[in-house]
Amino acid sequence: MNESVAPGAFAERQPLSPDAFEAAIRAVGAERYHDKHPFHRLLHGGRLDRDQVRAWALNRYCYQEAVPRKDAAFISRVHDRELRREWIHRIHDHDGLGEEAGGIERWLVLTDALGLSRDYVTSRRGALPATKFAVEAYVRFVVEQPLVVAVASSLTELFAPAIHRERISGMLANYDFVDERAVAYFKRRLQQAPRDSGFALNFIKTNARTRAEQDACVDAVRFKCDVLWAQLDALHHAYVTPGITPPGAFRPGGATD
Amino acid sequence: MNESVAPGAFAERQPLSPDAFEAAIRAVGAERYHDKHPFHRLLHGGRLDRDQVRAWALNRYCYQEAVPRKDAAFISRVHDRELRREWIHRIHDHDGLGEEAGGIERWLVLTDALGLSRDYVTSRRGALPATKFAVEAYVRFVVEQPLVVAVASSLTELFAPAIHRERISGMLANYDFVDERAVAYFKRRLQQAPRDSGFALNFIKTNARTRAEQDACVDAVRFKCDVLWAQLDALHHAYVTPGITPPGAFRPGGATD
Repeated sequence: MNESVAPGAFAERQPLSPDAFEAAIRAVGAERYHDKHPFHRLLHGGRLDRDQVRAWALNRYCYQEAVPRKDAAFISRVHDRELRREWIHRIHDHDGLGEEAGGIERWLVLTDALGLSRDYVTSRRGALPATKFAVEAYVRFVVEQPLVVAVASSLTELFAPAIHRERISGMLANYDFVDERAVAYFKRRLQQAPRDSGFALNFIKTNARTRAEQDACVDAVRFKCDVLWAQLDALHHAYVTPGITPPGAFRPGGATD
Repeated sequence: MNESVAPGAFAERQPLSPDAFEAAIRAVGAERYHDKHPFHRLLHGGRLDRDQVRAWALNRYCYQEAVPRKDAAFISRVHDRELRREWIHRIHDHDGLGEEAGGIERWLVLTDALGLSRDYVTSRRGALPATKFAVEAYVRFVVEQPLVVAVASSLTELFAPAIHRERISGMLANYDFVDERAVAYFKRRLQQAPRDSGFALNFIKTNARTRAEQDACVDAVRFKCDVLWAQLDALHHAYVTPGITPPGAFRPGGATD
């Protein structure tokens, strides 16, 4: 036995218990979920003007639009039919199915209320490059990472209901250009997100078996928080302080068609 | 003007008319669809034994199972919500939705009838490597090619109803181990394939605008025919003549669990 090597230095670290694993996932929300970003405090507190809210809504459209593509990318990698059948309802939630129009349509009701043309919003022409890079990084992450880690990256949904409730009440109270119809997207997500995060949390508890896999899942939630945070950084930089707007991006008073 | 260059040598080739484009697509079927493969003649003519039919069914499972992943990969690349909403029913057709079990389940009813365990079939352990390489090449093609070319690669469905009708009648007439329930997959596809190929044909006629794009679409159908043909070549080589079965692949009388 080589006594210069500390005992256990090369030992496999023990997996966390399911409860400790869940606590580590949840701790990421407390550490870096985008509810803590100054831009959200401005948004929910009524301290943005209509153009700043428009900038937020049309950039966030890119994220909304990436989510069903991210979920399809996930399904494209899954050989387990039951898992595909479970996951596909996430695409239905966003794209709709048959008569149900879906969450992206509800998002466009919000951008309608803000006076933005649908062609302009869905073209993503006015969105900040940093927004598009961030959301496409999320799609790539789900393509490239192990499936359990890809599932873990959805778990920011654990933290979403609180921010959605705050957003609904804050935006309704503070902006006369936002009404009940315009916040329908968030109201629906209050039901959808807990169902989805419950499934995903159970999935990673079952399938992340080693400590290394568990750590990668916790890192995936950090990564996803970064994807969300980076979008608000870009908005804040372009439309609040210092207000440096990249060429081609939406400008207050500029063309939106 | 340089007279040493033939007139029109560098000119853009004119696009085909919609009818000529469709005819070029359909001509690929006459040229190389897998209905012409000797293995299919053996299969439909009742000249395979039960183990050879089992080998076909468990290899073809890999193709069935790749199709919804291929369709999800396609959706993951589509920014047009209406196109995603249209395409997603292809995933439902194979994976089912809610109460509807879907085409893969119907395929497993066939492999049940052949006495293969579901675990063995869905594990893909006994499938030929060439089968798996071919079907995954199809998934990659749809990930990597322009969307209109990816759509075109689905158009072997134009040629499918004829082979499905031949297969239903041939297998029912010739094999006492195949009954109506076991061929339910093919019966359902008789309705699904024409609807899907009609949409896809219309899509490529609208969206392949240059001759180069049209040529790439025709090549995509050739590629897809190659994917189907290669699977039968591998089956024929392993289970008919010369009967060289790769290590690990299903063997008549061997373990299937």
